[in-house]
Amino acid sequence: MAVSPAIEALKEALKALPGVGPKNAQRMAFHLMERNRDGAMKIADALTHALATVTTCQRCNTFCETDICEICSSSKRDRELLCVVETPADLQAIEQVGAYRGLYFVLMGKLSPLEGVGPDSLAFKRLNETVANNEIKEVVIATNITAEGETTADYTQQMLEPFNLKITRLARGVPVGGELEYLDQRTLVTAFKERRSID
Amino acid sequence: MAVSPAIEALKEALKALPGVGPKNAQRMAFHLMERNRDGAMKIADALTHALATVTTCQRCNTFCETDICEICSSSKRDRELLCVVETPADLQAIEQVGAYRGLYFVLMGKLSPLEGVGPDSLAFKRLNETVANNEIKEVVIATNITAEGETTADYTQQMLEPFNLKITRLARGVPVGGELEYLDQRTLVTAFKERRSID
Repeated sequence: MAVSPAIEALKEALKALPGVGPKNAQRMAFHLMERNRDGAMKIADALTHALATVTTCQRCNTFCETDICEICSSSKRDRELLCVVETPADLQAIEQVGAYRGLYFVLMGKLSPLEGVGPDSLAFKRLNETVANNEIKEVVIATNITAEGETTADYTQQMLEPFNLKITRLARGVPVGGELEYLDQRTLVTAFKERRSID
Repeated sequence: MAVSPAIEALKEALKALPGVGPKNAQRMAFHLMERNRDGAMKIADALTHALATVTTCQRCNTFCETDICEICSSSKRDRELLCVVETPADLQAIEQVGAYRGLYFVLMGKLSPLEGVGPDSLAFKRLNETVANNEIKEVVIATNITAEGETTADYTQQMLEPFNLKITRLARGVPVGGELEYLDQRTLVTAFKERRSID
């Protein structure tokens, strides 16, 4: 016997959240209805507002609420540098460390044949146009160092080869604070392969 | 630099979900905006609908969309049996196994001095009225077998003592399929203490 059709519908809807299965969705639905109706209202309002206002930057494809995002319209950015990332979350992580002053391009995902995500599902066509129509000298490919991220990086690199640009990748190796003893094997192998001479 | 104020607000709002911290809230917000806007819309609609329609049964205090819930208004239920549970989720778990045919009373929480939940925060007053005004012969206390659940059970028992009813608790012991070797110590101690004679 269903407690309430509205709660059943809510449980079903909450399963759209990443990493949330039936048990967790039920816990969330009951929690919100039982003791945080204000919070539930805020989530509904925030979702509705975000759906209505959040669009993607026409230049770099990241989330923004205007045609062109703050970074793309800033005069302080190096317009000859373009950093290609998978998602707005990656862009935000890079912005937070403040080590990069160029522009971005967000692919909105990664190539994943297993999940049916091919090149047409990502923003490669727009990346091509961006590179063709702007004064870019170097493209930094900053996809994740995962199987899918690497595939995406390789595809991006091949696509950009005809432009005769400088194409770079993020350095791979031992993370800062990393102890060799506890490092995974592949990182250690990479760190050896890509070792650099001390000037 | 914030990607979008609307997304920041959404991340903040999503933290109202149980077990969701800042990192997870960001992941959820980006996921919904990036690749499941339909899902986001469904969550917003389901929340709004549930907030508008879900109320609590005036008799047993569980979630329902009418004054009296389906169970309380059913003529097939044993009206002399009342099962006290912490939450609608517990009620649903008991209903799913179909081993109980009486009525329920939902406290909507458990006593938790550490979290500031005292007897006045739960529905004890209404439980008292329900027991006083109905032909109940036995109350089954089915709170969780946790420290807070046990405290809640003790309080319930003391509150109901003046009514001279039969008061029972769920049997505690080795769970079905449980292997003694891997059982926690407290369960094993309880199983010994509450061992029963074979008739």
